[in-house]
Amino acid sequence: MTTLHRPRIVIIGAGFGGLNAVKRLAKADVDVLLIDRENFHLFTPLLYQVATSGLEPGEIAYPVRGILRGMERVRFLRGEVVEINPSDKTVTVDTGYGIRCEGYDYLLVAAGSRTDYFGQEQIAQYAFGLKTLSDSVILRNHILKCFETAAWTEDPLVRAALTTMVVVGGGPTGLETAGALRELYRYVLSKEFGHQITGLDGRVILVEMRDHLLSPYPPRLREAARRQLEDMGVEVILGQSVADVGEDQVRLSDGRVIPTRTLVWAAGVSASPLAEMLGVPLRANGRVPVRPTLQVIGHDDIYVVGDMAYLEDERGEPYPMLIPVAKQQGTLAAQNILRRLAGQPQRPFSYTGLRDRGIMATIGRSRAVAWIFYRLQVSGFVAWLAWLVLHLITLLGFRNRLNVFINWVWNYFTYDRSVRLILEHQPRPLMWPGPSLPERAAETLATVEAWRVDER
Amino acid sequence: MTTLHRPRIVIIGAGFGGLNAVKRLAKADVDVLLIDRENFHLFTPLLYQVATSGLEPGEIAYPVRGILRGMERVRFLRGEVVEINPSDKTVTVDTGYGIRCEGYDYLLVAAGSRTDYFGQEQIAQYAFGLKTLSDSVILRNHILKCFETAAWTEDPLVRAALTTMVVVGGGPTGLETAGALRELYRYVLSKEFGHQITGLDGRVILVEMRDHLLSPYPPRLREAARRQLEDMGVEVILGQSVADVGEDQVRLSDGRVIPTRTLVWAAGVSASPLAEMLGVPLRANGRVPVRPTLQVIGHDDIYVVGDMAYLEDERGEPYPMLIPVAKQQGTLAAQNILRRLAGQPQRPFSYTGLRDRGIMATIGRSRAVAWIFYRLQVSGFVAWLAWLVLHLITLLGFRNRLNVFINWVWNYFTYDRSVRLILEHQPRPLMWPGPSLPERAAETLATVEAWRVDER
Repeated sequence: MTTLHRPRIVIIGAGFGGLNAVKRLAKADVDVLLIDRENFHLFTPLLYQVATSGLEPGEIAYPVRGILRGMERVRFLRGEVVEINPSDKTVTVDTGYGIRCEGYDYLLVAAGSRTDYFGQEQIAQYAFGLKTLSDSVILRNHILKCFETAAWTEDPLVRAALTTMVVVGGGPTGLETAGALRELYRYVLSKEFGHQITGLDGRVILVEMRDHLLSPYPPRLREAARRQLEDMGVEVILGQSVADVGEDQVRLSDGRVIPTRTLVWAAGVSASPLAEMLGVPLRANGRVPVRPTLQVIGHDDIYVVGDMAYLEDERGEPYPMLIPVAKQQGTLAAQNILRRLAGQPQRPFSYTGLRDRGIMATIGRSRAVAWIFYRLQVSGFVAWLAWLVLHLITLLGFRNRLNVFINWVWNYFTYDRSVRLILEHQPRPLMWPGPSLPERAAETLATVEAWRVDER
Repeated sequence: MTTLHRPRIVIIGAGFGGLNAVKRLAKADVDVLLIDRENFHLFTPLLYQVATSGLEPGEIAYPVRGILRGMERVRFLRGEVVEINPSDKTVTVDTGYGIRCEGYDYLLVAAGSRTDYFGQEQIAQYAFGLKTLSDSVILRNHILKCFETAAWTEDPLVRAALTTMVVVGGGPTGLETAGALRELYRYVLSKEFGHQITGLDGRVILVEMRDHLLSPYPPRLREAARRQLEDMGVEVILGQSVADVGEDQVRLSDGRVIPTRTLVWAAGVSASPLAEMLGVPLRANGRVPVRPTLQVIGHDDIYVVGDMAYLEDERGEPYPMLIPVAKQQGTLAAQNILRRLAGQPQRPFSYTGLRDRGIMATIGRSRAVAWIFYRLQVSGFVAWLAWLVLHLITLLGFRNRLNVFINWVWNYFTYDRSVRLILEHQPRPLMWPGPSLPERAAETLATVEAWRVDER
């Protein structure tokens, strides 16, 4: 070690990539600063269950500081990264109560992905995404408010718009969301609003641009998925996209009009906008091209992992945006940083183990498709059970797992959804008489230098 | 029955009073309209556990429509009552998407109570109440944000203000909240922020105007409660009130200054402001004086029950604002309405059963006081266990009970608090292109008459 101070590693993002890196680095003789907008780690694959009143927000979120307990040289900063400066080697963070500038020796960017509306401003304005915990609570509130409003709306057109949900995107998220929405209607809302709304039908319509669902799956499973959705009463529209959003309706590309006020966008994701701060040309879906060592080309001290990283496998295809990829890349990036500190060569990424296990998508109660080892094609109850077990294992935290399990078992046997609360309130700032905290904090911060300097 | 239509009973409030009335009326040949601002029934005694990250909001709230399932002649309207007109016999409701005017034959008002700041505007502006589910989530977010901010604040005064919580009110709610806040700090926050904040102390200060805590209890238990709080590290200040809120501090009536940005107000409640709409002179705490039959004096067709009702017992004392009183009054009001429809005489309220079981207050982990049958004075673990069992029994819904139980057992053995999420977002209106839904709905509503008229 030639530096006088302990090496400082800044990690942006407390997802699977960032946390796996933190865990690896916590054991080494380095200082780590973890930055995230939220104070919790989020299990995104179950967001649709929060949106459809099946799970509590807290059951799929785990407090970051709980994970970091006992890691004495890891600090956590809650805030939004507003600038990355590779030449000064600093990251600027807006904490909501002041701006902090944090120096780094090595930077690991693992900020994940966001909903991508493909530049369609009008759709972005009215559609609901499903990438953050707030997204899912906002959608839950919206759906329940739509039905409460429909119950007292006389105009049949407005009422139809309020009780029809359109989901765009035929990938796993779209299927899961459409299936869960239809089950929410069929098992819960139809029973609780039926006597109050004449001719109630909670239509759920899944729209996919391609002429089939679940692109990566073999034709038989694609068909099985469609059939299972239609059995549940989901209307599947293939070969169409949403052209625009109009008064109480959306219009499809063939001119067809669907009365609705709920458009859930599960058609695409792209890398976090932080990718644009690195000053390198981006690849497909706004991802940052990295070397096999996960270093950004041109910025050796910056590593990018997970959904944000563009790296091709040996077949020339980019690694998919999946949790196991992010986890393994997070660990490797941390190891590569430690190898550099030890004067050892960098190692390239190679995706192992999980890769050949296959893929699966769930549709609803006892309904799913699974392509096990990319050979065995399973659909229905067995595939659903496999999905269930795998997700329980991946969920962080024993108690979360237990609560989720109880809720799932409960929902399965009672057909109930317990968490159908409309819970809204204005965010309350840290207000108090006298100068505001941001002003006070800015003043305070001006008199001290950043963390990097404090420590020297 | 002399009317041509089924009698219409409007119930305001889905608390214990309102719901018990609904359950009784659902079996009779009457139409019922239940109105509440929220779409859930709330178990208010555990709000402080949501505020201190121990429980999920959904674990103490139960969807109203779930409770009403299968009650074919009961309708639910989510909205805020803005007017009660006893001469026209109508209730006007703002649903957020239009104004509805609902007629009634009999009205039952059970809207509960709200935080009372005794007209101190400045305190009302900055203090945190603890009466609604939003209150508890807002306080949870606030506390966690204070610590996240303190972790990066250099000014020791600001930092002390951010990590000091003042609770006002020496009743059960004040004790429970102060105890839970201290435990949140001691078992969780101190372990997760300690290495990042030098000299961290999460002070919790309980301020009570009287010279003792827990007024209704015998002196020995009041002392036991104070001692248990102080053992946990809560600072108890007696004989003082909060004079005003200043920059990063509150000032007590003796001039003492406490650095803080968190003032939790558990010092008083008064009846819902709906009491003022009935046009009768109100009694102590803004409660509506009712006859022993629970009818409002001067308005025979209006019944008021629970926290809102002022009725003296045989000793001349008003019935306390407690769940068992509200439940029994809700049932009696419903029975009295049915007796009138059947031409039978009204019955007076007499509080039975639970009255003599005693009172209890919890303070924290294995700490509580209980005055069983108003004879046996118990404190510590046994009292705490009794409190726990009683609250589990009162909680609505089997699954809620199960989840709460698991969380409590978990918290007990692990000293953990799982739900420490900062989850904030702007409420999203039911927006869509074209005329807004309120405009459309107003238009629609103008063309139809109110429910009363529809049905005739």
